[in-house]
Amino acid sequence: MSKVYVAGIGMVKFGKYREKSLDEISWPAVKQALSDAGVERSDIQATYCGTALGGMLTGQRILKTLGMTGNPIFNMENACSSSAGAFCVAHQAVASGQYDLVLVVGAEKLTKFEGGTLPLEGEDADVQQGMVMPAYYAMRASRFMHDTGASARDLAAVSVKARAHGAKNPEAQFQSPVTIEEVLSSRPIADPLTLLQCCPNGDGAAATIICSEKKAKQLGIPPISVRASVVNSGVSAGIKQGSAHDLGKAARVQETAMEAYDIADLGPDDLDVVELHDAFTIGELIYYEALGLCKHGDETKLLHDGDTSLGGRIPVNAGGGLLVRGHPIGATGVAQIVEIARQLRGEANLRQVEGAKIGLAHTMGGGISGMDYGACSIQILEAA
Amino acid sequence: MSKVYVAGIGMVKFGKYREKSLDEISWPAVKQALSDAGVERSDIQATYCGTALGGMLTGQRILKTLGMTGNPIFNMENACSSSAGAFCVAHQAVASGQYDLVLVVGAEKLTKFEGGTLPLEGEDADVQQGMVMPAYYAMRASRFMHDTGASARDLAAVSVKARAHGAKNPEAQFQSPVTIEEVLSSRPIADPLTLLQCCPNGDGAAATIICSEKKAKQLGIPPISVRASVVNSGVSAGIKQGSAHDLGKAARVQETAMEAYDIADLGPDDLDVVELHDAFTIGELIYYEALGLCKHGDETKLLHDGDTSLGGRIPVNAGGGLLVRGHPIGATGVAQIVEIARQLRGEANLRQVEGAKIGLAHTMGGGISGMDYGACSIQILEAA
Repeated sequence: MSKVYVAGIGMVKFGKYREKSLDEISWPAVKQALSDAGVERSDIQATYCGTALGGMLTGQRILKTLGMTGNPIFNMENACSSSAGAFCVAHQAVASGQYDLVLVVGAEKLTKFEGGTLPLEGEDADVQQGMVMPAYYAMRASRFMHDTGASARDLAAVSVKARAHGAKNPEAQFQSPVTIEEVLSSRPIADPLTLLQCCPNGDGAAATIICSEKKAKQLGIPPISVRASVVNSGVSAGIKQGSAHDLGKAARVQETAMEAYDIADLGPDDLDVVELHDAFTIGELIYYEALGLCKHGDETKLLHDGDTSLGGRIPVNAGGGLLVRGHPIGATGVAQIVEIARQLRGEANLRQVEGAKIGLAHTMGGGISGMDYGACSIQILEAA
Repeated sequence: MSKVYVAGIGMVKFGKYREKSLDEISWPAVKQALSDAGVERSDIQATYCGTALGGMLTGQRILKTLGMTGNPIFNMENACSSSAGAFCVAHQAVASGQYDLVLVVGAEKLTKFEGGTLPLEGEDADVQQGMVMPAYYAMRASRFMHDTGASARDLAAVSVKARAHGAKNPEAQFQSPVTIEEVLSSRPIADPLTLLQCCPNGDGAAATIICSEKKAKQLGIPPISVRASVVNSGVSAGIKQGSAHDLGKAARVQETAMEAYDIADLGPDDLDVVELHDAFTIGELIYYEALGLCKHGDETKLLHDGDTSLGGRIPVNAGGGLLVRGHPIGATGVAQIVEIARQLRGEANLRQVEGAKIGLAHTMGGGISGMDYGACSIQILEAA
């Protein structure tokens, strides 16, 4: 497998674009990425588009707008990690030498479902009975609090940090800080989670162009290499499916992180910046341990010590994360990669993590039913 | 790139399974393929699931039923060629040495949309104004008839052949022959296409397991190699997008076929059996030329001479094709590969093409808007 580089990035600010179609929302992200990489539309050899709810041929619809439909286009779906999965498949295609320059785009328009619920598949008995995502993460929160002694205030502190970070990111969906009291007194969603502990609905798109070493040299781009790109699904061996005892941890994420660290030949201590899947506050705490940033039981200490805040040892979700940057499902995986790339290039402005050289992006997909049978994607990038 | 082999195949008869969920419809196809390949569930290293309308995490839901969710699962969407695209990506992963043994599954449950229309994306102006798939193929039929002098009876003859073939396939959705008169007098759908010239709605699933050369030797399977696996999208250079003059041909399919023939280092004359995308009768005629089976203008002659019938020079859609085997959108690409593999193994029973050594499967995805910006997938298989 050959080295793969991030050649270009682009993103549209996440928000509510009710008047725009998904392709109208998305093409500017692609155009930005092309411009950023300094390549022409005709240079792209294949496109991998991640979307969860964009409907048939989302990638084709976006690229048609740009006159870019002359090559292979693959649409990928893995729930919230749809575009992270697309990145993984695209990475594999470049790493194997099949292509030199490919586009990965993540896109979603959630406002089209306003007034109803997202079309989660209703065939699972537990979903039909109300085990939707906030309920699932609320159960995880309850278990986590039971196991570790964490309080509702500890959970809320994740949102306070995320909002403080997002206030420094002009592309974040929310840009004002909040207090713990404001978080706790916001509308209850699924106890113990309140509204400000849940990522917002929204629309958005993000794009990245990745390339081979040969192409990277030709382009003379700021060299960011992909050290690992891994997707896994499902309950892991040794963990009882659906066991309530395991809800406060994330064994499958831990295994996937270990696999990514092995491939990258580094460990969590080598990371300078992390984007992790904080669709709900509790997610951030649970994934701290799963990604190896701390031991189980030390999650809230890591948070309160400021280690994961900007200026801390290992800033997490410097751009605001899903909670504050927003979470248009299919767009999130690539948006995280865009954020990490900006950090590694030193282009993150007010939210820049000084001297960041190695970053990790972690995206979950699904996970409602049983234990965690959806998908977990982890990418590790390095400023080469 | 290393050689890739088809190790196992499985399929459930396409039909209307209103009482079953998509995973209940689909898992038997996966189990058949595992059994056919002689491998255990735990031997599968990754799964690529093609579905157009299955909803989020379709692959995960199918594999969860089988306790197979411990590995990477990628869901792929490319409209009607969703699982053909999944096959292409899976093929690439094995050819590059990333995996030795992977599962490709195609699955769809269209009966869940009964009483309404399929959720095609309504944002395209031409779709909103009625340019849905039957209307698009009807326009192509009118142009084709204008260009070549073909008659409505010529179109109907495609259905007669498909029904005759399907009558020999116990897995076909329809199993009775029809006459030209019955086809022509069936309910008009979009002039000149009548009901019996349109593929039926239905549910179904198909699965195939592909493997590396090393694994193929270990398994001692009947050696069927993948000679080419190509996906392309979009309007082709040199063809004016949406030009009515081009509607009777399929330039992008032709280019994709040429690419596949180049990769496989063979030509259309080397093919013994073909599965092509006859979602509507006119499709079969147009794709004859695009795949290089005849020159433009000779399509109806090829049909009437019996060349593409069982017993003819190059039997097309020996299993009944989409018109008669059925067309549960995401399942079709792999179902075509299953049919070709059966032919190359000499296991096609009543519909066996004698001595078939090389077969081609061709699947279209989308193509409504503009000219053909969806996807075209072509796989060439050989009994090694």
